[in-house]
Amino acid sequence: MIHTDEMIKETTRLENFSDGVFAIVITLLALELKIPDDISAENLGEVLLERWPSYISFFISFFSVLIMWVNHHRIFKFIKKADNSFIYLNGLMLCIVSIVPFTTALVSGYFNTSASSLVQAVYAGQFILINISFNWLWYVVRKHKTVVLSAANKKIVSRMTLAYAIGFPGYLLAMGMAFISPMLSMMVCFMLWICWAVAMINVKTKEDIVQ
Amino acid sequence: MIHTDEMIKETTRLENFSDGVFAIVITLLALELKIPDDISAENLGEVLLERWPSYISFFISFFSVLIMWVNHHRIFKFIKKADNSFIYLNGLMLCIVSIVPFTTALVSGYFNTSASSLVQAVYAGQFILINISFNWLWYVVRKHKTVVLSAANKKIVSRMTLAYAIGFPGYLLAMGMAFISPMLSMMVCFMLWICWAVAMINVKTKEDIVQ
Amino acid sequence: MIHTDEMIKETTRLENFSDGVFAIVITLLALELKIPDDISAENLGEVLLERWPSYISFFISFFSVLIMWVNHHRIFKFIKKADNSFIYLNGLMLCIVSIVPFTTALVSGYFNTSASSLVQAVYAGQFILINISFNWLWYVVRKHKTVVLSAANKKIVSRMTLAYAIGFPGYLLAMGMAFISPMLSMMVCFMLWICWAVAMINVKTKEDIVQ
Amino acid sequence: MIHTDEMIKETTRLENFSDGVFAIVITLLALELKIPDDISAENLGEVLLERWPSYISFFISFFSVLIMWVNHHRIFKFIKKADNSFIYLNGLMLCIVSIVPFTTALVSGYFNTSASSLVQAVYAGQFILINISFNWLWYVVRKHKTVVLSAANKKIVSRMTLAYAIGFPGYLLAMGMAFISPMLSMMVCFMLWICWAVAMINVKTKEDIVQ
Repeated sequence: MIHTDEMIKETTRLENFSDGVFAIVITLLALELKIPDDISAENLGEVLLERWPSYISFFISFFSVLIMWVNHHRIFKFIKKADNSFIYLNGLMLCIVSIVPFTTALVSGYFNTSASSLVQAVYAGQFILINISFNWLWYVVRKHKTVVLSAANKKIVSRMTLAYAIGFPGYLLAMGMAFISPMLSMMVCFMLWICWAVAMINVKTKEDIVQ
Repeated sequence: MIHTDEMIKETTRLENFSDGVFAIVITLLALELKIPDDISAENLGEVLLERWPSYISFFISFFSVLIMWVNHHRIFKFIKKADNSFIYLNGLMLCIVSIVPFTTALVSGYFNTSASSLVQAVYAGQFILINISFNWLWYVVRKHKTVVLSAANKKIVSRMTLAYAIGFPGYLLAMGMAFISPMLSMMVCFMLWICWAVAMINVKTKEDIVQ
Repeated sequence: MIHTDEMIKETTRLENFSDGVFAIVITLLALELKIPDDISAENLGEVLLERWPSYISFFISFFSVLIMWVNHHRIFKFIKKADNSFIYLNGLMLCIVSIVPFTTALVSGYFNTSASSLVQAVYAGQFILINISFNWLWYVVRKHKTVVLSAANKKIVSRMTLAYAIGFPGYLLAMGMAFISPMLSMMVCFMLWICWAVAMINVKTKEDIVQ
Repeated sequence: MIHTDEMIKETTRLENFSDGVFAIVITLLALELKIPDDISAENLGEVLLERWPSYISFFISFFSVLIMWVNHHRIFKFIKKADNSFIYLNGLMLCIVSIVPFTTALVSGYFNTSASSLVQAVYAGQFILINISFNWLWYVVRKHKTVVLSAANKKIVSRMTLAYAIGFPGYLLAMGMAFISPMLSMMVCFMLWICWAVAMINVKTKEDIVQ
C-alpha cells in the first residue's frame, strides 16, 4: 500500500515540476515583447506597429507551449510510475521546451530582416527536436505502461501516436520551407498546432476522457 | 469512482498551471521597476522620484492581476470537469494576462511623455481583451456547469455575471478617455478594480462562501 | 463536510499561490548578480571582486525572503478559512515582498557610491512596510482565528506577536542609521534576521510544533 | 493523527517551495542564451555559431540542476519531519543553486576569452559549494531520520553517501584543472553528472525504489 502511494507521489512531483517549467516558459514569452529603451515618444506608435512579427510569434509560441503542456498532461495519465530514465527523458524534453523563448526572440527580432530564413529555420528546427523528444517519451510510455487499456483508450493511444508521428515530417517541411518562404513556414507551424488541437477535441467529444 | 477522481485531478492540474502563470506574471511586474544602468549616484534620488508613474502602474497592475486570480479561483469552483475547449479558452485568457507586464512597462516608460494617450489606451485596451476572455470563460462555465446551485450560489452567479458585464463598457470608457485625459483613464482602471473587490467582499459576508 | 473541505482547499490554493510568488521572488534575486555586458576579459576578475555589495545584499535578501516565507507558513497554520479581505491583505504583503529584488538591485548598484545612504534607507524602509503588512496580517489572524489554542500554541502566538512587534522599531532604527552609516544599517537588517530565526528555532525545540 | 498529518503537510510545502525554486532556476538558464540587441542580420548566423560555449554550458547546467532536483527529491523521501534548522539548511542549498544561471552566464560570455580559467574556476567552485550543502543536508537527514530502513534502503543510503562524498574531490579537481585547461575542467563537470545519473539508475533497477 505504502509502496503504491510512494509511486503515485513520485509521479505527482514530477508532473508538478514539469508544470512549473511549462508555466514559467509560457510566461517568459511575453518578456520578448519588450521594446528597446531608446525609443522616443514620437516614434513609439510606429515602432509598436512595426513589431508585428513579435506579436505573431508570441501568439504561436504561447499556444504551441500550451498544446505541449496539454499533451504532456495526457501522456502522464498513462503513467503509474516514473523511473530514473523516464525522469531524464522528461528532462530532455523540458530542456528543449525551455529554449522556446530564445527562438521566439530570434524570430521576433529578425523576421523582418534578411536573416528571416535563418531564424524561421531555427524556429521550426526546434519544434522538430521537441517532436522527437515527445515521440521518444510517448514510445517509452507505451512500451512500459502497466495500465490495462480499455477499447476507448486504445483508440486514443493510436490517435496520439499518429499525431506525434505526423508532427515530424510536418515540422521538417516547415524547416525546409523556411529557405523558400519564411512566412509560409511560419503558417505551417501554426497550422500544425491547429491540427493537433482539433484532433484532441474530437477524441474528447467522441469517446469521453481517458481512463 | 476512478473516473470521477481523474476528472477532479484534471481540473486541479489546470488550476495549478493557471496559478503558476498568475504568480509569475504578478511577480514579473516588479522587474519593470528596474532603473536604467547609467544613472549616476548624484541623480539617483531625482530619477527615483521622477519615476512615479512606474510605481502607480505597478501597484494598479499588481492588484488587477490579483483580482483576476481571485475571480479565476471563484470561476473554477463551479467547474467539475475541464474539457479541451475549456483548456484552450483558459489558455487564451492566460495569454492576454501574460502581456500585462509588457503594457505596464509601456505605461511606466511613456506616461510622462507625449505618447501618454497611446500607452494608456493600449493599457486599457488590454483590459478590454481580458474582460472579454473572462466573460467568455464565465459564459461557457454557466452553460455547461453540472453543479446544482443553491439559492445563495444563484445570487453569487448573478452578481459575478453582472460584474463581468459592467467591466466591458467600463474599460471601453477608460480606453476612450485615454485620448482626452490619460490620468483620468488610469483612475477609471483603478476604480473598476475597487468596484469588483468591494462587490466580492459583500457577496462573501452576506451569503457565506460558494458551495 | 463538503463545506469544510472547500474551506481547506481555498486556503491551500492561496498558500500555493503565495508560495509561488515567494519562490519566484527568491530566485529572481540572483538575476541582480548579472555583470554588465561590456566588461573586457582583462577586467573581469577585478569587476567581480568590486561587486561585493551585490553578493552581500543578495545573501541578506535571500534569507530575509526565506524567513518571511517560513513566517508566512507559520501564520497560515492558524488559519482555517480565508475570506476576501484576508486575500487582499495577503496580496498587499506579497506586493511589497515582490519589490525586494528591485531594492536589492539598488543596494547592489549604489552601495559603493555617494548614494549609499539613500539606497540603504530605501532598503530598510521596504522592510518596515513588510513588517507592517506582517503585523497587520497576524493581527487579523489572531482576531478572527477559529482554532482553539493549546497552552503550547498560546506561547508560540505570544512569541510571534512579540517578534513582529520588535521588527518595527528594529527596521526603523536601521532606516535612520542609513543616514549615519549605511554599513551599520545593513548589519542591523542582517541581525534582525538572525534574531527571528533563533527565536523560531527555540520555540520549536522547547514546545514541539504548533498543533 | 492530526499531529502526524501536520508534519507531512509541512514537508510537502517545503518540497513544493524547493521544487518551485528548482523549476525557476532551470528555466531561467535559457535566458542566458539571449543574443545582444545590436547584431546585424548579416552577422546573425556567424554570431549564433560563435556562441557555442553558451549552448554547452546551458546544457550542462540544465542537467546539473535536474540531477540536483532528482537527488533533492530522493533525500526528501527519507524525511518525515522538517524542523526549522533543516528549513534553513535547505534554504542555504537553494541559495547556492539559484546562482547557477549567474555562473553559467559567466562561462557563456567569457569561455572564449582570456578569462576562461577564471570563469571556469568560478563555475566549478560553485558546484563545490552545492556539493558541500548537499553533503550537509544528507548528513543531517541520516542522523535525525526517524524511518526504519529496510536492507535495500540501507544499500541505497550507502550509495548516495558515497556519491556525494566523491563529488567533493571531483569538483575540487575540476576547479584546479580550470587553471590548466578550462575545456578539460568543463568535461570533468559534465562527467561527474553522468556518473551520478548512472549510479542512480543502477540503484533503481537492482533494488527497486526506496520505501
